[in-house]
Amino acid sequence: MLLGYLFDSCQKIKEHFLIDILYLKSMNIDEFVERSLGTWRSQRSAHHLAFHHFEEVTSQIEIRSLENTDARVIELCKTNQVDPHLVSSPFYMTWLGESDWDEDEVLSGSTVLVPVPDIENPTKGRLLREQGYAETIPAIGYYQLVEDGSFILNTQYDRATAEEKIWFATPNLRLRVSLIKTADGKGVTTASFSSEIRSLDLEN
Amino acid sequence: MLLGYLFDSCQKIKEHFLIDILYLKSMNIDEFVERSLGTWRSQRSAHHLAFHHFEEVTSQIEIRSLENTDARVIELCKTNQVDPHLVSSPFYMTWLGESDWDEDEVLSGSTVLVPVPDIENPTKGRLLREQGYAETIPAIGYYQLVEDGSFILNTQYDRATAEEKIWFATPNLRLRVSLIKTADGKGVTTASFSSEIRSLDLEN
Repeated sequence: MLLGYLFDSCQKIKEHFLIDILYLKSMNIDEFVERSLGTWRSQRSAHHLAFHHFEEVTSQIEIRSLENTDARVIELCKTNQVDPHLVSSPFYMTWLGESDWDEDEVLSGSTVLVPVPDIENPTKGRLLREQGYAETIPAIGYYQLVEDGSFILNTQYDRATAEEKIWFATPNLRLRVSLIKTADGKGVTTASFSSEIRSLDLEN
Repeated sequence: MLLGYLFDSCQKIKEHFLIDILYLKSMNIDEFVERSLGTWRSQRSAHHLAFHHFEEVTSQIEIRSLENTDARVIELCKTNQVDPHLVSSPFYMTWLGESDWDEDEVLSGSTVLVPVPDIENPTKGRLLREQGYAETIPAIGYYQLVEDGSFILNTQYDRATAEEKIWFATPNLRLRVSLIKTADGKGVTTASFSSEIRSLDLEN
């Protein structure tokens, strides 16, 4: 109990010292989603580590904001038993891409994504999605916005774990490193890197 | 007196825990270099952003520790007017690689690297090197070891700025994102990603 108390005190001291630093750079989820909205042209390189194989994917990604009251947002909240009032900056993402590995593979899709920040610590939260990244099933990811401005997302699937790290090098260049890990989270099977450049958005 | 004693003990335990927490994630430079030693097989993908061009490089990287008293370390300190007593974990790096872009290009080299931690804040410091990354001239980089365990290095060259972020996904998988920016640091010309897998080291 004494150790517990000391640990808590230490946490508080640590938080006190770090709070200035944390708020200096790290964003909240609303700001992160706001900066991500638009049309992006993406170059993605996947390193399949066991085979030392490179895969190149070129794609177009669109990220659009959704209203908190959108039927798809409400539906996803219902499926996950989440109070829709806790939702912040839901969005919709579509992608259309080409891989040099398998030309017949259809690299297109769309999904609704719903951030649910933790009430006690808004730099962390859950990300509900209709369709996951490593497996095309509904998934809940856990995100954290860290000190250096990165958004880190961990998602546990049935047969794999995905860890994504997304950050902005400039307002028009978004970078993303994704790791696909074995289900136990210990081994990495694929490491991939995307550079996403904002396109002129003809719709707006 | 008993309370005073208990208070002091608590303070000490507190400090002990605080230190553990602070050092739980971010490493010091000695630990970072220690974990980097060895032979690595690297897959690197460079995204040349203006042309949406992909470049693939496969290489072997060797990182070996050097003595603080090594003549090359002393020489580099002298060139940069640095007191050799301030040096921590100097090392030597060699690389030999092949690019799919220009098969005639010789992607090989070696360099001595000398970390000089800041006395007041050892999570930051200078990195002296014989030969730079963006330009093959001597360079001084400024590094920082951040909260999530990443090593961030900024180097200003004559015509470009390089920003590198290196971290360990597992003890045997080192990842690196390098950005080559215009000299003013505002635009990014090349974003590249390396995944480095530790090889069996036949020498040791």
